[in-house]
Amino acid sequence: MVKVSVIGATGYTGQELVRMLARHPAVEIAGLGTQSYAQKKYSEVYPHFRGVVDLVCSEPGDPALIEKADVVFLALPHGLSGTLVAQIHAQGKKVVDLGADFRLKNRAVYKEWYKTEAPGEALLAQAVYGLPEVKREMIKKATIIANPGCYPTTVILALYPLLKEKLLDPRTIIIDSKSGVSGAGRGLNVASLYSEVNEDLKVYGLPRHRHTPEIEQELSAIAGSAIMVNFTPHLVPLTRGMMSTIYCVPETPDADKIAEVYRSYYAHEPFVRLYPPWEFPHTKWVHGTNYCDLGFSLDERTGRLVIISVIDNLTKGASGQAIQNMNLLCGLDETMGLPKLALFP
Amino acid sequence: MVKVSVIGATGYTGQELVRMLARHPAVEIAGLGTQSYAQKKYSEVYPHFRGVVDLVCSEPGDPALIEKADVVFLALPHGLSGTLVAQIHAQGKKVVDLGADFRLKNRAVYKEWYKTEAPGEALLAQAVYGLPEVKREMIKKATIIANPGCYPTTVILALYPLLKEKLLDPRTIIIDSKSGVSGAGRGLNVASLYSEVNEDLKVYGLPRHRHTPEIEQELSAIAGSAIMVNFTPHLVPLTRGMMSTIYCVPETPDADKIAEVYRSYYAHEPFVRLYPPWEFPHTKWVHGTNYCDLGFSLDERTGRLVIISVIDNLTKGASGQAIQNMNLLCGLDETMGLPKLALFP
Amino acid sequence: MVKVSVIGATGYTGQELVRMLARHPAVEIAGLGTQSYAQKKYSEVYPHFRGVVDLVCSEPGDPALIEKADVVFLALPHGLSGTLVAQIHAQGKKVVDLGADFRLKNRAVYKEWYKTEAPGEALLAQAVYGLPEVKREMIKKATIIANPGCYPTTVILALYPLLKEKLLDPRTIIIDSKSGVSGAGRGLNVASLYSEVNEDLKVYGLPRHRHTPEIEQELSAIAGSAIMVNFTPHLVPLTRGMMSTIYCVPETPDADKIAEVYRSYYAHEPFVRLYPPWEFPHTKWVHGTNYCDLGFSLDERTGRLVIISVIDNLTKGASGQAIQNMNLLCGLDETMGLPKLALFP
Amino acid sequence: MVKVSVIGATGYTGQELVRMLARHPAVEIAGLGTQSYAQKKYSEVYPHFRGVVDLVCSEPGDPALIEKADVVFLALPHGLSGTLVAQIHAQGKKVVDLGADFRLKNRAVYKEWYKTEAPGEALLAQAVYGLPEVKREMIKKATIIANPGCYPTTVILALYPLLKEKLLDPRTIIIDSKSGVSGAGRGLNVASLYSEVNEDLKVYGLPRHRHTPEIEQELSAIAGSAIMVNFTPHLVPLTRGMMSTIYCVPETPDADKIAEVYRSYYAHEPFVRLYPPWEFPHTKWVHGTNYCDLGFSLDERTGRLVIISVIDNLTKGASGQAIQNMNLLCGLDETMGLPKLALFP
Repeated sequence: MVKVSVIGATGYTGQELVRMLARHPAVEIAGLGTQSYAQKKYSEVYPHFRGVVDLVCSEPGDPALIEKADVVFLALPHGLSGTLVAQIHAQGKKVVDLGADFRLKNRAVYKEWYKTEAPGEALLAQAVYGLPEVKREMIKKATIIANPGCYPTTVILALYPLLKEKLLDPRTIIIDSKSGVSGAGRGLNVASLYSEVNEDLKVYGLPRHRHTPEIEQELSAIAGSAIMVNFTPHLVPLTRGMMSTIYCVPETPDADKIAEVYRSYYAHEPFVRLYPPWEFPHTKWVHGTNYCDLGFSLDERTGRLVIISVIDNLTKGASGQAIQNMNLLCGLDETMGLPKLALFP
Repeated sequence: MVKVSVIGATGYTGQELVRMLARHPAVEIAGLGTQSYAQKKYSEVYPHFRGVVDLVCSEPGDPALIEKADVVFLALPHGLSGTLVAQIHAQGKKVVDLGADFRLKNRAVYKEWYKTEAPGEALLAQAVYGLPEVKREMIKKATIIANPGCYPTTVILALYPLLKEKLLDPRTIIIDSKSGVSGAGRGLNVASLYSEVNEDLKVYGLPRHRHTPEIEQELSAIAGSAIMVNFTPHLVPLTRGMMSTIYCVPETPDADKIAEVYRSYYAHEPFVRLYPPWEFPHTKWVHGTNYCDLGFSLDERTGRLVIISVIDNLTKGASGQAIQNMNLLCGLDETMGLPKLALFP
Repeated sequence: MVKVSVIGATGYTGQELVRMLARHPAVEIAGLGTQSYAQKKYSEVYPHFRGVVDLVCSEPGDPALIEKADVVFLALPHGLSGTLVAQIHAQGKKVVDLGADFRLKNRAVYKEWYKTEAPGEALLAQAVYGLPEVKREMIKKATIIANPGCYPTTVILALYPLLKEKLLDPRTIIIDSKSGVSGAGRGLNVASLYSEVNEDLKVYGLPRHRHTPEIEQELSAIAGSAIMVNFTPHLVPLTRGMMSTIYCVPETPDADKIAEVYRSYYAHEPFVRLYPPWEFPHTKWVHGTNYCDLGFSLDERTGRLVIISVIDNLTKGASGQAIQNMNLLCGLDETMGLPKLALFP
Repeated sequence: MVKVSVIGATGYTGQELVRMLARHPAVEIAGLGTQSYAQKKYSEVYPHFRGVVDLVCSEPGDPALIEKADVVFLALPHGLSGTLVAQIHAQGKKVVDLGADFRLKNRAVYKEWYKTEAPGEALLAQAVYGLPEVKREMIKKATIIANPGCYPTTVILALYPLLKEKLLDPRTIIIDSKSGVSGAGRGLNVASLYSEVNEDLKVYGLPRHRHTPEIEQELSAIAGSAIMVNFTPHLVPLTRGMMSTIYCVPETPDADKIAEVYRSYYAHEPFVRLYPPWEFPHTKWVHGTNYCDLGFSLDERTGRLVIISVIDNLTKGASGQAIQNMNLLCGLDETMGLPKLALFP
């Protein structure tokens, strides 16, 4: 059994982690750290865990959280992971960081977008960007995983095969994304109140949402040249679910070729599903699962390609992907403990 | 492996059955019958099953649905089960009927409330009302299970220990219930449109909803005397979830005694959870699970007892309970394949 | 023109007041006081007022708010109205208090339920409970109006004619209420977050919600004898809308008589609508309006009467009723400025 | 008083028309035609009109609907307006057609996209595309108004000043639109059921939604050259509200110049509101109003302009705009009877 701790266990991504870890056949939960609810039973914080996870929570700094674990998950706001990762690493344990601190390789870029210092150079160099479909072999050998952001997951999976095969004009990428509210977390904020979100639709973070440099870093690495994108996130009134609608211009407008390239990259991926022509995924079809579903339409009139990429922002967009990474880190079957059937309707 | 068929597989309760059966470790799906989508792959009807259940659907009358199965589930509108149950029974197979036709023991009462003929006397006599917490031993020996209605499940589980122990004045029972919209099924109806349901709250079926005689039949049997209740169902804008708020007068206003009786009946039940004093269950805490969660408050000022009973209407209120019954019918662990951790938030 | 100020203008009830006052043909808004957003333009706080109400907000204690106004509305948390009402009263101005401080006539009862001191005896004695359908003539002559709570409005309007005419057994009243989330206000609270409320249904405040003594005080005064009720509020996932389902036993089970009494009290009321037998109001049909819609069903089997009473909690349940009271205080047409057509769907 | 009839009065756009016409100070409703509910009182179909509009509905073909009216509104599915418009026109009455039949000037294009014959050439030539901000003077002199589609309204208002002033590269326009469900109407359709729409997000009509040629026709006319766009509509779980996020490349990346051009076109428009830099409209801020709210962001990194355009799809997107057109046709104040304050929250 793999022993795991979760630090930051009572936010929404923390809770989603615990939910899946509790059912994972090869995992034992060693500890749960939380700023807000230390010394409480987890099932007092989240009563749906009553009778399933009744463990008492610790302070996030409790050394036992690291000592007792083989793998530690960090589900913390940005800026807080650096010190903890250093400690975990020093004790020879593995860590999956769901926050942003280890995602950007360029410390100056991190500072520009996050307004705080990045982790130290040496530690940062150890971190692998944990998108299994792109970096599976590196992940298997890593000890520090920077778990991708939710928006970047939708975008990179949608564009990876096409950029890698040089099928796109890389200057033409526009990303229009829509997210459910759980992505904003459980923090108190007028903008997250039911009465504000219900029956509303808005854009936010325009034009400089922090996932932009992450998207650009990874797409540039794939393409082998510097890529800049337009990225516009929207908030829609649903709890879970995320869609990116991506516009770009293919080098040659050949739908069959595009479909074939997608198949060659993804036909055997356990958590990517491709849709046939004229069919497009709904977020509801991945609700509570670790899938990224992809559909595309080549507009013959304008020559533009439109790609639809959907995930559950808390699962493939955060905690499910983190467990997929843990499975790889620990030599387990990559799909273990990860839900594949959406809760519908 | 138990081989099962589902007839009426593409309604919401049918889909919920297939979702849980597909993950059930001791079940193999032998066939799926559907009026509306015969000859289509199940994953074409419900794309979230893509790669998980790609079986081609049959006509509901296809004899192979019965022949290939050990247990047949019927998820059909009322009035359609009689003939099918007779056929299944004649072939020595077991059947769990999720519709209403076999629930009422008195054929005249059935006709009065459902405006159509009940199944034949002999067949009806074989049917066991499948509420495991009340009739576990009878279910194990049965071949025809009348799976309880969603509202009756919330009510009977809430009142069973108290009525059985003669702690209540049986003339004082008032049931105020609230249901999500998925209970109305996938049929086309103006009242089920998003724009009608969203931001609305209404009462319906007043004063003669068809679950009334079912509730009264079972409560009367438990109490050993004829019970009449007030039952008022409401529609609330959520997809899944059901709550009954039950008002009644205890013989003696002793909260400790009530709590103790509940514990003595339910402490070891796998799918009933009791809440401590001053805590009350949310529907979200049973979302997608087979639990019935119960809390109560004794109002010292008025002497009335208020009981809060919540379920997921599609799971413990329909398809989860049906699988719990199947597990009992087939000698399997009663909890097998049944979700216990809510999808939250 | 009547000059009005609103103190507490940026909460949800404050905003609803400003929305209706801005369109009121006989009103001029003299000032808007707010703790959180003083010195900001109102349309910066609520951008939908851009070009309609661009007034700069004041501190809630700004004396000009009282000096410039003929009528002052207070939309504040409980415990804060006493001092302000005294000041307003001393300057000979009229006041409509949307908070709870002046509703309970018995200061000991107030202290028991609100855990703070009630306003002084003398001032309290001046306050009239502002439910126009019950106390219209007293309101016209008053200077201090205690605007009713939302739940009490639904309940008192439903029971007033029947209790007044001694048609009910007053010991049998059970109130099961359901409210949208805007009633909880704009304050920051985990329980008001979208991800917590969406797809959830819960009971709260059981068994001692603070509207209980208010309901009992007014029902007792109407009946001429002390009445105790069971009152159970529920939170449902909608922004606006409130329903009370009221159970009671009539002295004689005569539906025609009950309908006739309702008509004799309410046929000419501008903001109460009666529904014919077998029809029941939806909250959506009063969305954004000042109506209270009433329907009832007499259950011949049990002899119980079930009354359905719906309002928009922010309008008839708070700010619309406050304007109705202001119209009466100022000798204006009672319906002036008050919406009658629901925004549907 | 202007006498008006509405044919197709019981769909959602019909209902929205009746709601606003009932409060319009210069209008008298002469008749309401409806296929589905003829001979019923309007307030029986929509109970929120009880006591406000109790008129009995007629068959849609009832000649009195035209005879008694000065202006007739048609709110019908496409393909049904041609004959009625001819009759209305022949009787010298004015008509506002909310359907699509008179919007496309090129009959071959209409046939290609709508798969049915367009109205006759002569009649079509009389029709003016009723977007007041663009064609106010033509509308005043017209007798047949083709009321714009909801998506085209958001797009044309966003791009009109920039294209007219030749500030954009017309080959670069990409439109990503999001709509609430009421736009799909009250027709029965699995895809419009609450349980399907709630907690879902999907693209539809890709890549050939019928509003595409309408958008292109009007943008081309404004620009003076043929324009082709990418247009991708999405369905989001809200009842009312529509947003278009529009991407394009300005000829020179000068945000001040763009703001100035917008102001010069729209500063005095009664139903267009411009947002300052870094602020973007929410759909909730136009909920139930006739506004189109516009914000923009010039991305200095990519040189692309992102424009956010929001309306209430039933109001400015359909029935409010129709009344704005009627006001112009009849020489009334253009804003009469049209709501300006959103129902919030």
